Amino acid sequence: MREYYLDNSSTTKIDEVVLEEMVNVYKNEYGNPSSLHSLGLRTEKIINNSKTIIAEFIGSDRGEIFFTGGGTESNNIVISSALKSAKNNDNIVISKFEHPSVYESAFQLINKDVEVRIVEIDRNGYIDEDDFSSKIDENTILISMMLVNNELGTIQNIEKLCRKAKAINKDVLFHSDAVQAFGKIKINVKTLGIDYMTFSSHKISGPQGVGGLYIKKSSKIIPLMYGGKQEKAIRPGTENVAGIAGFGKATEIIASDFNEYVRILRDIKSDFVCEFGKSIKNIKINSSDKGAPHIFNVSVFGIRAEILLHYLEMKKIFISTGTTCSSKAKKENRVLSAIGLTDDEIQSTIRISFGINNNIEDNKYLINEFINIIDEIRKIMK
Amino acid sequence: MREYYLDNSSTTKIDEVVLEEMVNVYKNEYGNPSSLHSLGLRTEKIINNSKTIIAEFIGSDRGEIFFTGGGTESNNIVISSALKSAKNNDNIVISKFEHPSVYESAFQLINKDVEVRIVEIDRNGYIDEDDFSSKIDENTILISMMLVNNELGTIQNIEKLCRKAKAINKDVLFHSDAVQAFGKIKINVKTLGIDYMTFSSHKISGPQGVGGLYIKKSSKIIPLMYGGKQEKAIRPGTENVAGIAGFGKATEIIASDFNEYVRILRDIKSDFVCEFGKSIKNIKINSSDKGAPHIFNVSVFGIRAEILLHYLEMKKIFISTGTTCSSKAKKENRVLSAIGLTDDEIQSTIRISFGINNNIEDNKYLINEFINIIDEIRKIMK
Repeated sequence: MREYYLDNSSTTKIDEVVLEEMVNVYKNEYGNPSSLHSLGLRTEKIINNSKTIIAEFIGSDRGEIFFTGGGTESNNIVISSALKSAKNNDNIVISKFEHPSVYESAFQLINKDVEVRIVEIDRNGYIDEDDFSSKIDENTILISMMLVNNELGTIQNIEKLCRKAKAINKDVLFHSDAVQAFGKIKINVKTLGIDYMTFSSHKISGPQGVGGLYIKKSSKIIPLMYGGKQEKAIRPGTENVAGIAGFGKATEIIASDFNEYVRILRDIKSDFVCEFGKSIKNIKINSSDKGAPHIFNVSVFGIRAEILLHYLEMKKIFISTGTTCSSKAKKENRVLSAIGLTDDEIQSTIRISFGINNNIEDNKYLINEFINIIDEIRKIMK
Repeated sequence: MREYYLDNSSTTKIDEVVLEEMVNVYKNEYGNPSSLHSLGLRTEKIINNSKTIIAEFIGSDRGEIFFTGGGTESNNIVISSALKSAKNNDNIVISKFEHPSVYESAFQLINKDVEVRIVEIDRNGYIDEDDFSSKIDENTILISMMLVNNELGTIQNIEKLCRKAKAINKDVLFHSDAVQAFGKIKINVKTLGIDYMTFSSHKISGPQGVGGLYIKKSSKIIPLMYGGKQEKAIRPGTENVAGIAGFGKATEIIASDFNEYVRILRDIKSDFVCEFGKSIKNIKINSSDKGAPHIFNVSVFGIRAEILLHYLEMKKIFISTGTTCSSKAKKENRVLSAIGLTDDEIQSTIRISFGINNNIEDNKYLINEFINIIDEIRKIMK
């Protein structure tokens, strides 16, 4: 039976061209980039090439791109850097729907004298701008606001928020977690005006285990780890050369015809959402047309999301309930409660996320399966 | 021209069977292990399978194995955990020849009230046991001693050191960086009696970007990063599934006939060292027969190691000067000065490290090239 993978915001299947590139590196380019001999120089070039590709894609300089072990690590680097450099009475400002690697870091790493201020989300899944401004003052050292929310797909106006923030406090450092945005919406870090940006390979058909961090040249950072001069000592440890080559290739593929790539994703999603909305009753669509091209979030009333997920997987259709990164760890859903869903509604909420392996031609079949399964479950529930 | 890679302590070429396994995972097993659907369960099983293989190999329980982004990260986790939990006047004890990811972490992460005590190395490259005992007291919270030194290949008697340490202070936590030991000497963590052990995939023909950390069930650890429940929240972030599968496979290959694997390595090295010693005058061999089976460290008097390295690479022979992990970053060599080498001798020191891709049959050719090149350089230098 064919597999229909609709969980691309959790992780993506690797692109075949990316995998070929990685296999080539594994077979032929096995030197340690820190080695003085030519095998080392060659792998160092591979890393620099990936940096150049990514830098061009987000409008930065190559020297502002740093590779890490993943998005979670990139987020932790930024948060821990701020907390390490904090003085008494400083504060950091984050939104209520940040990824746990920002949200929990801020609280776990907390230094007694640093306050964490949480900015509210409005009913549509956008950062409340008045609340945002009110939370920033002369003691704010870091602001961290997600670019595309991982559950709802809402795109935040980071450019405007960053401008507002720096008008209130010109020294504040601004970070954006762009893990769900990178490769899905056009990003220019200089236009956004931010100091740091997190992005990840495995969300864009690259390999797992490789993340990225943009650090504006003039913006200070204190490393999370020590012990090597790799990545200008900001991320020590022997580089994952093949993984970095794969991340570069995955970015190159998307960047080569970015508008078309996004159009395809958006077309698949729009068609799916439209048919879903027409065919299935008693639902609430939580994502928006104006959001990221790949995320569809919907509450199917009266059905527990987990049950729907398991019925669907019997048909080899794979979706997510809430955020997958931590779906196995049950807890209060900060994002969905922020947009006003009741506990019952949250329990009924699924996330469908598209990737380049999906086809608009499959939508008819998929919608049909959703209709049948939801009907069946609702009958049983009665 | 064929390549002769003699720099396997820096990093190894991936084993073809390991690469096949990874390609298989990339193509067929692309679910996020945290996902609730069956694709996620399948990748979770892959991770557990790798843990089982490694646990059996080092005599631990599966639940005591944690995957990280590399050896540097594993070392940083242990050091930062100790420093985070430290109280005033506590101390940590490390050896003079620890890897920078232990040594520099200890100093960089330093909390003002915690003292770092450095244990001396004797002239043969072994930890000075009297100095070791004298540095430990009731305020020692962590001891970190490398199992196989990365430059000299000396094997430390960690079992004895750990027993001594715990006799002085029963609550002390004992860590060993086994990056150069794992897969090269027989390890049983229960016999060693240690609480933590670091190991890495890319030193044993597995992929880069994957490390491991053994944490004894009863021994406490505070994470370095936050934000996900992966690896029991000790190492959050989406798992590098294919990399972990590759690490498991690389371990399985070595474990399947470990004594034979080590014998082959040792035979290649012994033969090489013997011929090298017989054929080349004015040298000092710094490694020992009793050391790890793969590391040969030698000072070739009157020749700068960097020049020798570049002459050799013209013949496609790749070696290292000092430790490669940070060879591009010039600095005082703690290890070689500890065993009493002068600055001039240190500048003349090379490290040759063998791997399973090397052949004893190549030694004759290689020794010949070394003889010719060293002769040539020495003539020019006169």
